[in-house]
Amino acid sequence: MSWLTFTSDYGLQDAFVGVCHGVIARTAPAVRVLDVTHGVRRHDLRHGALVLQQAVGYLPQAVHLAVVDPGVGTARHGIALKTPRGSFVGPDNGLLLWAAEELGGIEAAYQLTEERYWLSPVSATFHGRDIFAPVAARIANGLALSKVGDECAVDALVSLPRPLLILGHGEVRGEVLAVDRFGNIQLSARVQDVVAAGLDPAQSLELTMAEQSLGVRLVHTFAGVAPGCFALCEDATGYLAAVVNQGRASDLLAARTGDGFVLAHG
Amino acid sequence: MSWLTFTSDYGLQDAFVGVCHGVIARTAPAVRVLDVTHGVRRHDLRHGALVLQQAVGYLPQAVHLAVVDPGVGTARHGIALKTPRGSFVGPDNGLLLWAAEELGGIEAAYQLTEERYWLSPVSATFHGRDIFAPVAARIANGLALSKVGDECAVDALVSLPRPLLILGHGEVRGEVLAVDRFGNIQLSARVQDVVAAGLDPAQSLELTMAEQSLGVRLVHTFAGVAPGCFALCEDATGYLAAVVNQGRASDLLAARTGDGFVLAHG
Amino acid sequence: MSWLTFTSDYGLQDAFVGVCHGVIARTAPAVRVLDVTHGVRRHDLRHGALVLQQAVGYLPQAVHLAVVDPGVGTARHGIALKTPRGSFVGPDNGLLLWAAEELGGIEAAYQLTEERYWLSPVSATFHGRDIFAPVAARIANGLALSKVGDECAVDALVSLPRPLLILGHGEVRGEVLAVDRFGNIQLSARVQDVVAAGLDPAQSLELTMAEQSLGVRLVHTFAGVAPGCFALCEDATGYLAAVVNQGRASDLLAARTGDGFVLAHG
Repeated sequence: MSWLTFTSDYGLQDAFVGVCHGVIARTAPAVRVLDVTHGVRRHDLRHGALVLQQAVGYLPQAVHLAVVDPGVGTARHGIALKTPRGSFVGPDNGLLLWAAEELGGIEAAYQLTEERYWLSPVSATFHGRDIFAPVAARIANGLALSKVGDECAVDALVSLPRPLLILGHGEVRGEVLAVDRFGNIQLSARVQDVVAAGLDPAQSLELTMAEQSLGVRLVHTFAGVAPGCFALCEDATGYLAAVVNQGRASDLLAARTGDGFVLAHG
Repeated sequence: MSWLTFTSDYGLQDAFVGVCHGVIARTAPAVRVLDVTHGVRRHDLRHGALVLQQAVGYLPQAVHLAVVDPGVGTARHGIALKTPRGSFVGPDNGLLLWAAEELGGIEAAYQLTEERYWLSPVSATFHGRDIFAPVAARIANGLALSKVGDECAVDALVSLPRPLLILGHGEVRGEVLAVDRFGNIQLSARVQDVVAAGLDPAQSLELTMAEQSLGVRLVHTFAGVAPGCFALCEDATGYLAAVVNQGRASDLLAARTGDGFVLAHG
Repeated sequence: MSWLTFTSDYGLQDAFVGVCHGVIARTAPAVRVLDVTHGVRRHDLRHGALVLQQAVGYLPQAVHLAVVDPGVGTARHGIALKTPRGSFVGPDNGLLLWAAEELGGIEAAYQLTEERYWLSPVSATFHGRDIFAPVAARIANGLALSKVGDECAVDALVSLPRPLLILGHGEVRGEVLAVDRFGNIQLSARVQDVVAAGLDPAQSLELTMAEQSLGVRLVHTFAGVAPGCFALCEDATGYLAAVVNQGRASDLLAARTGDGFVLAHG
């Protein structure tokens, strides 16, 4: 039994995802496909990279197919990455690297140059269907990664800027990583970062974001404050999240992915 | 072949559902997962309970995993329920009970106390991933329900208020159960309730809701009235629904789940 | 291993799709289900027909179940269609025909009249659950198509108007087929249609739509123009699409499915 996971910004409104499932089913009918999410923000590479990084440790050993690809049709390459605990297929734009680190780091990287494993003809705008899905399916079928194309240097792969995080002078400066369905605002800092910045997590704090400042306490879970109250808690990925018990923090703070924040004593 | 069904309010925009699928795949790779819906209104226990109740009779015999969990991280327990035609895993907040009745009633109930079947560490905010999914996967794998924790009294389980329904004096008073994608407004009454209230379903009726009153006829299906016309019909679950042929009743009546309605002769 | 694909306008917010999966799982537990999309615009038959037509060539050999069914509960029939490379099950309203042509044309058509293969009772509003899903599952299980009901004449099947396309006098007149998640506007013309209309695709063109006219060039892919720039390119299905590199063409042109367009030299 072999697994292939699939993450993208394709959404489920159109047939993009279904068509890729079709290509996988035709190429590798015995492989089981697990959809991680197709709700990555459109063309948002860092969002996709974070989602995959935070999910991959919970997924079965698999070929992880991921496609967020604003550069489709340009000279950017497709790549396949080998790690100790699974492999990745997708564009060489930084999307796959943080998740690959999470699985133990990249042991080898290959450019997708062997066109025999692609659909033909290849469209200019849908490499998920024409290149990435069929190559990932072949690998899930047992094809050696080294067959998909030329090996390339790991340090030549395109990388993304790390999430902002600056500690010191009694404050934590960072950025919003994501806002989820529940309106929880995930920050780029962890509890240990608060401590490392010289703040006392047991004392009251002030969170400044989107030109607003709110007093806030660090609690174990959002149920640790009264309904409707704002708080900070460690979310399920280990990052701090600004939350409102039984409400939406994103309604209180007009936060968007990439917005800066400052956390300090009030 | 063993089935596990999955219902939640996690949505598909984030990776919550994909991560739970990952945990299930790692724990029980041979089990097949069927997603009922992840579109339950956020933190709306009664909506989740109704969706599961109305769906479960059409699902294969399975372990039914359901997570709508506004109390995650508080003292509320996780439970597993045994019925004659399948089992349930989720929070002890009333979410599972109506569906369990639909499958013949609860034969035994267990609190999820055996931490050996959970992921470790357990997060404060994502018990779907850390407790419910792994326990459900173990049961789908063949683990006896009695192994997941201490048996508890069925009548000590948390229950939800039943949908409002008052019959008599020539009127039916109830509430809106759900508004679906097509704008159909599901009411808490059935055809037999209309009759029991002393109304004649063949005569014209008046539906009052959200400070509006509309004349309405009971028809076999929304195609029973002219396009754009408002009607009541029995929906696919047996409840009455306010509908507009080729339109959206929810655009005509600003109805929301839980809103009251009165049905009487005009 | 047998496949059943599933396309609908049911959305994923409610349990419609999950319930149909349940019915399929109960009827044909060994069959694998592939969701093409459930995001067809509500009750939009032509949109559904186009989505299925454009996807089906990438799907495995299968029973293709498709439900967009504004006439549910009226006298419209259910049908099953046999083609050289797969079969179809759904309503007789034109939804299935273009996809059937894509798989080589209809070899035989049957009305779904054998009620023994349906759920009982049949609801008035959810034939996807009660008729189409169980019949499709039976066929995927091996039931001969000729068993599902009476054979009917292919030319008596309900058909939909073809997308508008008028070539000549130095202009292409057509209509918007779809607007996807990325804001790309798919047109009813192909590159060869532009040439056939006497236009030079290498010269600058003018696209008029929704009372706006924009100068536009035909490029290989949206990355062929500067970020934020408007262009025409061949999309992954072979149709022309109005696109904006790293933006949304649908934000620039208020285009909706079915809107007319004119393409000519400026």
